[in-house]
Amino acid sequence: MSNGRTGKFIVLEGIEGAGKSRQSALLVDALRSHGVDAIATREPGGAPLGEKLRTLILDPHYSPDAITELYMYSAARRDHLKYIVEPALERGRVVVCDRFIYSTLAYQGYGRGLDLDFIRAVNAATIAPVKVDLALLLDIAPEAGFARKGGADKTDRLERENLEFFGRVYSGFKAMCESGELVAIDASGEKERTAAKIYAAVEKIL
Amino acid sequence: MSNGRTGKFIVLEGIEGAGKSRQSALLVDALRSHGVDAIATREPGGAPLGEKLRTLILDPHYSPDAITELYMYSAARRDHLKYIVEPALERGRVVVCDRFIYSTLAYQGYGRGLDLDFIRAVNAATIAPVKVDLALLLDIAPEAGFARKGGADKTDRLERENLEFFGRVYSGFKAMCESGELVAIDASGEKERTAAKIYAAVEKIL
Repeated sequence: MSNGRTGKFIVLEGIEGAGKSRQSALLVDALRSHGVDAIATREPGGAPLGEKLRTLILDPHYSPDAITELYMYSAARRDHLKYIVEPALERGRVVVCDRFIYSTLAYQGYGRGLDLDFIRAVNAATIAPVKVDLALLLDIAPEAGFARKGGADKTDRLERENLEFFGRVYSGFKAMCESGELVAIDASGEKERTAAKIYAAVEKIL
Repeated sequence: MSNGRTGKFIVLEGIEGAGKSRQSALLVDALRSHGVDAIATREPGGAPLGEKLRTLILDPHYSPDAITELYMYSAARRDHLKYIVEPALERGRVVVCDRFIYSTLAYQGYGRGLDLDFIRAVNAATIAPVKVDLALLLDIAPEAGFARKGGADKTDRLERENLEFFGRVYSGFKAMCESGELVAIDASGEKERTAAKIYAAVEKIL
């Protein structure tokens, strides 16, 4: 096993409105109903320093550039890994994480134009020694995701980003599917159908 | 000129007790008395997000590991560069900075054992497009620096680090002198003599 004794680290990725948080919850419910000790989390997920960093990242009083944002997300990520993910993996749990390093490649790399190799180096240093066992892209077109989330009604800085930006982010996620880093799951239909596809993919690695 | 129209970016480095903040002030005084528009700063130096990050880094309630610390320092550094250093350089000022990227190599690299090449990659991304025009090591033995600072009386997390750690940090600074990244200035004597040596080194690049 790559993580602890029997733990598995599963990541759900996707653009805004792809249904990641709902599908995380459904996946954990399904795993538990099959007797698997699973938890859902998302960064910073209660990690003490990570929570503070997340608050700063989303505070509209500051305007971190893409590099600063990369470091702050990465610091929050590492705190979350140390305090939430690693202890759960060491206890043999299945950890389902809503967003991870692939979002950083998609948003700060493809979206904001940071060098992808640099982000990959930062990501590798951030997560070691944890390994991702399965990373799924909940695949939905940017227009559909944007419509689901209510578009410009949202007020936090990230949600206000425009559709063109989400188009670049989406193309990044698709490139990661082509390279094999992510496995695409069609998430455009009914949530129950999407949940069944996700469960089928996860079941194979348990 | 590497920075703006006529600005120069000068860094003073060294272990605790080397006299960096005092020598920064003396250098700026000397420059001003020669008609040079100079300012002293240190990270985060009033940069709004950087200040918040610095508070988190030094808060004893958290225990960021070396990687998390690297990202937080680097985020604070970039904020300081954007809001304090770059605007001053663009106005043609001489900026004297108390600690910079070399401290990160010394403390997180040589001190805590992070990969030096990775830190160099992070440092390069952090500071671009700013260039350091002159970086001086205020050279004092760790034992002497520790004694000057009052040793274990200090209460913040960084100052409580032990002398063995400072020995590794010091060896890192010395290695950077050998590689030519830093220029060593003997800082073991009277502060006026050290100040004169620093001024002589700075004068050459103005």
